[in-house]
Amino acid sequence: MSFHTISVKTNRQTEFVDISSRVAAEIQASGLKNGMVLVYCPHTTAGLTINENADPDVQRDMLMELNKIVPFQDGYAHLEGNSAAHIKATMTGLSVTIPVQNGRMTLGTWQGIYFCEYDGPRSRKVHIQTIRES
Amino acid sequence: MSFHTISVKTNRQTEFVDISSRVAAEIQASGLKNGMVLVYCPHTTAGLTINENADPDVQRDMLMELNKIVPFQDGYAHLEGNSAAHIKATMTGLSVTIPVQNGRMTLGTWQGIYFCEYDGPRSRKVHIQTIRES
Amino acid sequence: MSFHTISVKTNRQTEFVDISSRVAAEIQASGLKNGMVLVYCPHTTAGLTINENADPDVQRDMLMELNKIVPFQDGYAHLEGNSAAHIKATMTGLSVTIPVQNGRMTLGTWQGIYFCEYDGPRSRKVHIQTIRES
Repeated sequence: MSFHTISVKTNRQTEFVDISSRVAAEIQASGLKNGMVLVYCPHTTAGLTINENADPDVQRDMLMELNKIVPFQDGYAHLEGNSAAHIKATMTGLSVTIPVQNGRMTLGTWQGIYFCEYDGPRSRKVHIQTIRES
Repeated sequence: MSFHTISVKTNRQTEFVDISSRVAAEIQASGLKNGMVLVYCPHTTAGLTINENADPDVQRDMLMELNKIVPFQDGYAHLEGNSAAHIKATMTGLSVTIPVQNGRMTLGTWQGIYFCEYDGPRSRKVHIQTIRES
Repeated sequence: MSFHTISVKTNRQTEFVDISSRVAAEIQASGLKNGMVLVYCPHTTAGLTINENADPDVQRDMLMELNKIVPFQDGYAHLEGNSAAHIKATMTGLSVTIPVQNGRMTLGTWQGIYFCEYDGPRSRKVHIQTIRES
């Protein structure tokens, strides 16, 4: 159906940015009624996930714990110094796929789509692709 | 092609529930021959994965280790007390996508589709969307 | 559009194998112009991810850290002795989905598609399914 790229500006080293309304706007612009949307992160030190959009403490706890599980420094060889960000990207995943019904994503009540910055702050891109049910 | 929602009842705080046969039944009911199926979890403290369906010890080991990597209590701020479940959901992922050929998923010999409960027991929903190859 | 299975030979217990060019070749053979590709791993002790294809130290760091987060031995019950591999497969994910535009995947500049071997060396399979935008 359609393919668009949006820009996402991050402001911290690690940060979750809610992009749900921007994905919804692309679906509306595409005219898609029934099918799915593929949201894709073309970077290697950031990812995409779906999680709670109500209490901001959830995002803070998630980042705190991910940063504890994968320490920023841990004897990594990669000279750029951001190996932890690469690992977190793979643990989170580089894309999310969501069903679309009657022009709306079937997100749960508390679900939001988050761009997961693990090596910011940076200017990032996200691809949004709709696929029609056929 | 089709979109249906199934209910999944979980019985423990953390638990993997095999939903493979229920996904297969939805594909058969949809009449899909070739394409893919998107299985989607609309919750934020549960996920979906694909893993071994032979020895139940694998699921037990996986839950034991995930619960060790992401402790239930770890100085989280979120007052609801289930931040660990949110983190495990993101680490696992909220959806799985599987090719369908000749009406059957191309699951490997030992693969099953698991609903991953991280904050149960609860009554949960899972969306199943088929997309035809066109 | 098309579905093909490729073979991947791994040479170590844990190893990331770049399969990007093989996925690109399947897309070209399929004639797909606009849509998406679903790359699927039918195993339970291996996964698929997208990460940096420039400095090989990134892959070494990622494997080192994953093997530290999920130790090979940790009191697992599964007698086959490879529970760590099952957990890493679920943490990494069993599939990747990538938009295709004008016959090419929209991979980022530094992105490669990696088969993630966690219980090798072995002969493995990967399914590649293209879905046309309709």
